[in-house]
Amino acid sequence: MKEDFIVTPWEVKGDVDYNKLIREFGTEEVTDKLLERLKNHTGDLHHFLRRKIYFSHRDLGWILTKLDQGEKFHLYTGRGPSGKVHLGHIVPWLMTKWFQDKFDTHLWFQMTDDEKFLIKEKPLEEVNETSYENALDVIAVGFKPKKTHIFSDIDYIKTQYKLALKVAKKTTFSTAKAIFGFTDSSNIGIIFFPAVQTVPCFLPSELYEKNIPILIPASIDQDNYWRMARDVAEKLGYYKPAQIHGRFLPGLQGMQDEGKMSSSVESTCIFTTDTPEEVEKKIMKYAFSGGQATVEEHRKLGGNPDIDVPYQWLTFFEEDDRKLKKIYDDYKSGALLTGEIKMMLVEKLNHFLKGHQERREKAKDVIEDFMLRD
Amino acid sequence: MKEDFIVTPWEVKGDVDYNKLIREFGTEEVTDKLLERLKNHTGDLHHFLRRKIYFSHRDLGWILTKLDQGEKFHLYTGRGPSGKVHLGHIVPWLMTKWFQDKFDTHLWFQMTDDEKFLIKEKPLEEVNETSYENALDVIAVGFKPKKTHIFSDIDYIKTQYKLALKVAKKTTFSTAKAIFGFTDSSNIGIIFFPAVQTVPCFLPSELYEKNIPILIPASIDQDNYWRMARDVAEKLGYYKPAQIHGRFLPGLQGMQDEGKMSSSVESTCIFTTDTPEEVEKKIMKYAFSGGQATVEEHRKLGGNPDIDVPYQWLTFFEEDDRKLKKIYDDYKSGALLTGEIKMMLVEKLNHFLKGHQERREKAKDVIEDFMLRD
Repeated sequence: MKEDFIVTPWEVKGDVDYNKLIREFGTEEVTDKLLERLKNHTGDLHHFLRRKIYFSHRDLGWILTKLDQGEKFHLYTGRGPSGKVHLGHIVPWLMTKWFQDKFDTHLWFQMTDDEKFLIKEKPLEEVNETSYENALDVIAVGFKPKKTHIFSDIDYIKTQYKLALKVAKKTTFSTAKAIFGFTDSSNIGIIFFPAVQTVPCFLPSELYEKNIPILIPASIDQDNYWRMARDVAEKLGYYKPAQIHGRFLPGLQGMQDEGKMSSSVESTCIFTTDTPEEVEKKIMKYAFSGGQATVEEHRKLGGNPDIDVPYQWLTFFEEDDRKLKKIYDDYKSGALLTGEIKMMLVEKLNHFLKGHQERREKAKDVIEDFMLRD
Repeated sequence: MKEDFIVTPWEVKGDVDYNKLIREFGTEEVTDKLLERLKNHTGDLHHFLRRKIYFSHRDLGWILTKLDQGEKFHLYTGRGPSGKVHLGHIVPWLMTKWFQDKFDTHLWFQMTDDEKFLIKEKPLEEVNETSYENALDVIAVGFKPKKTHIFSDIDYIKTQYKLALKVAKKTTFSTAKAIFGFTDSSNIGIIFFPAVQTVPCFLPSELYEKNIPILIPASIDQDNYWRMARDVAEKLGYYKPAQIHGRFLPGLQGMQDEGKMSSSVESTCIFTTDTPEEVEKKIMKYAFSGGQATVEEHRKLGGNPDIDVPYQWLTFFEEDDRKLKKIYDDYKSGALLTGEIKMMLVEKLNHFLKGHQERREKAKDVIEDFMLRD
């Protein structure tokens, strides 16, 4: 059952086996010991970490050693602005915000509108505008204004270009082909693009004229880029970027069918701009249930939280471990019905989205404080 | 004898057969009829045209038709700033200046420092500085300040990037490979670069928001780029750029051995910054002679101007047709000795370089009037 899945920067499909991903990508597991070291610095742990939703890493231990030695890291993450932001996109940003809050550090946030133009049937002007639309969602997450630097590749290319050239010069087509699967029919823009995506791994060091450790919270499907960045880092005299990888928020209809949420399929996702009614309707209608066919059977046999999408989503959005445990037990015992667990999720999401949407509205007034432009 | 030569954007070697080039590149010959049409607009013809030093073109007739219809063209040419400027580089700029003077038109001059960084063992900062050093030579040629726009790719990439992405999206690796001979070991920067070099073919149209015909005076070794630009032009809704191609100024030791002048081999070229003494010494010592071994034999048998480098150079630098004819005849008859024709060239070049060097010095004060930056 757990054999057929695909995870690449452009595609996530099937029921993802995260242990297998760690083996295949050659990353490290986030261990309790590592979390203990992190907790020594932060005092507590985000529920994404407590629950191993962030399950894999590269060099997180090294970041902690650097912290022990008094050297601060910067954060880097990004977004391909191909359309509206949904909750699956927000997950790594929530993780990133926690790191920023705990370590009061700079965040570099890259909007890869160039990439989206190169691979989608969309006009350049549209993806570029989407960078700014999506930036409102980034800001709404609550990042620190003076330490958060959001930029569209298209509008910040002059600053990035020199480093992109340096990375590109050290990367042969053969290497890029092996990492990204380019073919003869790939366009020459997307072949160059990985050099642009690696730039923020090194840009802080260049701008501050000292070697700065970088931590990238991201989904594991982006690992290819950081692998390339790590290969090139040494040749350019920079630190290799460290990463921490999260699980995908399942699509509403479950991971088996559709992999991660996809903004191109309305029924798989909740957008940050959805109304409370839309959220309720989508969850009620589409969310894959681990419950039984009838209330009677459910009371008797209980539900299966491990495949129940509302429960899975609550592991991302219900911060209280005890509450979550109770939901798990009650659902499994049959005390909690499918309609009830769905309504719990609806309330949780609508509460989250109410705050998000208010902050997103306010973000329109302050967006220029966050955006970098050449 | 005329079979072994190579002409690519990166290499020109051997004794170039220009008629064969026209066939191989699929360009058109510059005919007397075409020159007549041009002369109707300009009143006279530059000696590079009268002597068919500019021998090949694409769509020059179309440019003239556009002129007949009252539509003005812009000029585009450029330079790969890998080192000092020599007289071989100046030749296309002299041709370009003539077109600018005659048609009072805009010139876009691209310094491809990004390309030079990607293919040479030079630091990025050095090639970027060379762009500005070389720009002094461009300005010294005498282009119009308000209508001449010189830019380093690195410093003007923000303006160029959007168009480069549009070109890149329409160009597969397969196409680029066929045109430029890329291999698996080509770096991913140089694979993208052709998209950047084609940008100025379309940039004036974008900036002026109307379709503007472009004429590119350049050596034929750059044709690959314009072929690619012409393929993409229609897909993007722009005119195809027209071109006029010049012969190479032979290296001092002749085309047979070394092809065009190369700044990396001192003995093949005269730099724009050479002193009169250096010029005299190089010509006397290195310039390949079509003369006889002794004065006595030369007086008796005469010299061969067709292989004599000083004579070949005079076809580029002696504007007066009657003087040139007399030099040809006298050299052939033996009336003019090797030492004498060499001194004629030395005087001609030193006169040219004296003016050039004075203008180059003055250019330092006005360079910012010419340079575009993002």
